[in-house]
Amino acid sequence: MKLYEKLADEVAEAIRRGVFAVGERVLSVRQASRQHGVSIKTVLNAYALLESRGQIETRPQSGYFVREAAQTALVAASGAPSKHRDVDPSSLPAAPPEAAAVDVSRLVLSTLRSIRAHDAVPLGSPYPDPSLFPWRRINQYANAIARRHTSWNLIDDLPPGNPELIRQIARRYAENGLPVDPDEIVITLGATEAINLSLQAVARPGDTVAVESPTFYAMLHAIERLGMRAIEVATHPRTGIDIDALEQVIARQKIAACMVMPNFQNPLGFQMPDERKRQLVDLLAAHGIPAIENDVYQELYFGDARPSTLKTYDTQGLVLHCASFSKSLAASYRIGWAMPGRFRAQVEKLKFLNTLTTPSVPQVAVADYLRQGGYDRHLRHVRKVYRQQARIMTAMVQRFFPAGTRMSEPQGGYVLWVELPGQVDSMRLYQAALARGITVGPGMMFSNRSDFRHFIRLNYSYPWTAQTEAALKTLGELVAQMA
Amino acid sequence: MKLYEKLADEVAEAIRRGVFAVGERVLSVRQASRQHGVSIKTVLNAYALLESRGQIETRPQSGYFVREAAQTALVAASGAPSKHRDVDPSSLPAAPPEAAAVDVSRLVLSTLRSIRAHDAVPLGSPYPDPSLFPWRRINQYANAIARRHTSWNLIDDLPPGNPELIRQIARRYAENGLPVDPDEIVITLGATEAINLSLQAVARPGDTVAVESPTFYAMLHAIERLGMRAIEVATHPRTGIDIDALEQVIARQKIAACMVMPNFQNPLGFQMPDERKRQLVDLLAAHGIPAIENDVYQELYFGDARPSTLKTYDTQGLVLHCASFSKSLAASYRIGWAMPGRFRAQVEKLKFLNTLTTPSVPQVAVADYLRQGGYDRHLRHVRKVYRQQARIMTAMVQRFFPAGTRMSEPQGGYVLWVELPGQVDSMRLYQAALARGITVGPGMMFSNRSDFRHFIRLNYSYPWTAQTEAALKTLGELVAQMA
Repeated sequence: MKLYEKLADEVAEAIRRGVFAVGERVLSVRQASRQHGVSIKTVLNAYALLESRGQIETRPQSGYFVREAAQTALVAASGAPSKHRDVDPSSLPAAPPEAAAVDVSRLVLSTLRSIRAHDAVPLGSPYPDPSLFPWRRINQYANAIARRHTSWNLIDDLPPGNPELIRQIARRYAENGLPVDPDEIVITLGATEAINLSLQAVARPGDTVAVESPTFYAMLHAIERLGMRAIEVATHPRTGIDIDALEQVIARQKIAACMVMPNFQNPLGFQMPDERKRQLVDLLAAHGIPAIENDVYQELYFGDARPSTLKTYDTQGLVLHCASFSKSLAASYRIGWAMPGRFRAQVEKLKFLNTLTTPSVPQVAVADYLRQGGYDRHLRHVRKVYRQQARIMTAMVQRFFPAGTRMSEPQGGYVLWVELPGQVDSMRLYQAALARGITVGPGMMFSNRSDFRHFIRLNYSYPWTAQTEAALKTLGELVAQMA
Repeated sequence: MKLYEKLADEVAEAIRRGVFAVGERVLSVRQASRQHGVSIKTVLNAYALLESRGQIETRPQSGYFVREAAQTALVAASGAPSKHRDVDPSSLPAAPPEAAAVDVSRLVLSTLRSIRAHDAVPLGSPYPDPSLFPWRRINQYANAIARRHTSWNLIDDLPPGNPELIRQIARRYAENGLPVDPDEIVITLGATEAINLSLQAVARPGDTVAVESPTFYAMLHAIERLGMRAIEVATHPRTGIDIDALEQVIARQKIAACMVMPNFQNPLGFQMPDERKRQLVDLLAAHGIPAIENDVYQELYFGDARPSTLKTYDTQGLVLHCASFSKSLAASYRIGWAMPGRFRAQVEKLKFLNTLTTPSVPQVAVADYLRQGGYDRHLRHVRKVYRQQARIMTAMVQRFFPAGTRMSEPQGGYVLWVELPGQVDSMRLYQAALARGITVGPGMMFSNRSDFRHFIRLNYSYPWTAQTEAALKTLGELVAQMA
């Protein structure tokens, strides 16, 4: 460890212990140099590192100040009004933001397996309850299509994909205020493949990619799969990736791409404000860095209208927008798409090389469903249900979990992010819960570091039942025992 | 170009001009050194290169002899009995077998697009006529499955895949004399994904991979996608990859993997004899080199029984066997699998990272079809039809194409490999045919070199009609004009 890193850790520890509170000024560079017996340059390096971690900020002519930590915006679960913001710098990221090789897939896969193996309410599942989907109608279309032998011909819907499906997707964007060129759309096998192909189109093995922290693990998977390195950037539970911290990271090293989920991020659930989306796009464009935008929850907003996307602000063709119908219409169909801007030709070719083509019947069935109408009615219903169930799940965590528990306030989607009190180890909780037939999503899945070891993700897409309530009560008791 | 390469080309040219005939001895090392005014070492290097190209061979105590060229086993199309072997060393690979970066996907994709855009008989299609498939019955199963809402849940058939489908696949191998461990099978999105994941599991970007020459382009695509290099090894139209030539290649450089299609290779159609399969497996095992076996045509044999696979002879877990139902049951379902031997864990993980999961309903529908029976009856019918249509297509090429045309003798599958006389450029033929609404598969798709520029691949899976006959007649006339 270098001297400036050591100093940065000491200052971070002082912040953690409350020596410097949020908004307070830390030692000036000169003071710190004297007090720690190090050079001015070492202090400047240490403060730059703390800035890039999102822990302090410079104010012109005034010096360095402790920033509100990202995790401190979570809502206290117990013994506090739901709008109270509990400030607890102890949940700040501890490790420095250094690019690292990635390997979270083992944990994610074993978590998913355990969910499959258990009949309990899948609180740990990343997938939505399929019973809300209009699957009967979609299957009717699929059945009608598959009765024509021509639909069994592989060649018709080769990349970029079924033309009618592409048209319908473009139409929906246009209706929501984002005119897109249908020729930019490439159909993929779920957003997973769209993200993988997008990353492969813009970066090489060994490159460093900036991601949110915590980030949805599919981002880390894409980086792991291609032998790249991830650098995690502090991310705020209400406003998204810390743009200043990202700027610091970009100033310090070469970043090949930035992967973000601006709408209803899994696990934090925030909707990045429009102005910050624009700032992010501008910052990346200024450095010629492609942005890979995972927007799979775009239709599951709790507000009045579909939120904007990074693509909305993209004037350079540097945003590779990825989405799917998996969260809003038919998860097991695996229909996703990419709008890769200036990287369109590469993504289409990689799609062809990777899986040749996406199965035809599901493509046409979704196109038929979109054309026949009813998607908006379905979505209005789903949004209402998820909004209600988010409130119920929040209330139940407040009721059953011990004091000190904190939570996100999802603006869309169907997952709640919960910080356990007293640094309770979510891997221990995960194991203990599993023994009782309950699954949770351990926080370790969402970062390559151990910053989120005392967090869990809960899925509230399933209807609230007595069984869910009992499961949540058991979880709360386990956390209380471990705290 | 180095001196020994220049010398090798001169000797190859002499063989081509008939100075040295097949089976004849070339100049001794000492003679060649004197005659060409180069060192003994340069001659030895040049002869080693020619050996690795499969053009000459050493005989102990006797010197170097001209080998029967790979392409010379093709059958003459016109004016000769169908069993006559025309010896024409002019069709020998001209370029040295050097590893090269790969980019054939552009040509393949544009060819497939042109097939899609035309209503003519798709002689250039790589896919089987879907009308022969039992798609009505499979769709009945799919429809019954999709009526249960549980089948819309993503989580049940995550990698390695639907357990019942895996069991049915293992059962079929066992019935055909290859007992396999169901736990080794990983379901993929077609054999394309199985091949991609297998290659990624055993080799790194920049590595060199040995392939057949000509090879099925999916092999080149996999190499291109991962930024590896391909080295093409002479491949015989009746017996498959030249094992001696491969051994030479292995002796000269580090090979990360060897990709082959031992049964009914696309485009050559050979069935590699059992003994040669065993030799190939042994050679690779002796050097610890993984073999990636593409066995998608395994069920489409013209002989009496399903042929053996490389996997049959694998004692080290070094064979990664890839297959699918796309050629024999349901192309657009995209159900494939890998049996990756000792690389099973890596392949399963890569499947998860690459596309998360293969759609569920098609997996279960195929499993139901296999369990209910009827697959063998269906296959007996398809084999009979393809065998007949291979004969018709062969006869029609003999009838309509000019003298000097030569062909493969497919032992299974549904494609015929045709060598055009007089070095007719198949890209010109492809363009001229396209203008008349006819597609062919240009030989350039099957190699990273230009050795097969005067070859085309024809698909005979479609029923023979007056339209097909007219198309073939037109093709023959075009070739005659160009020859």
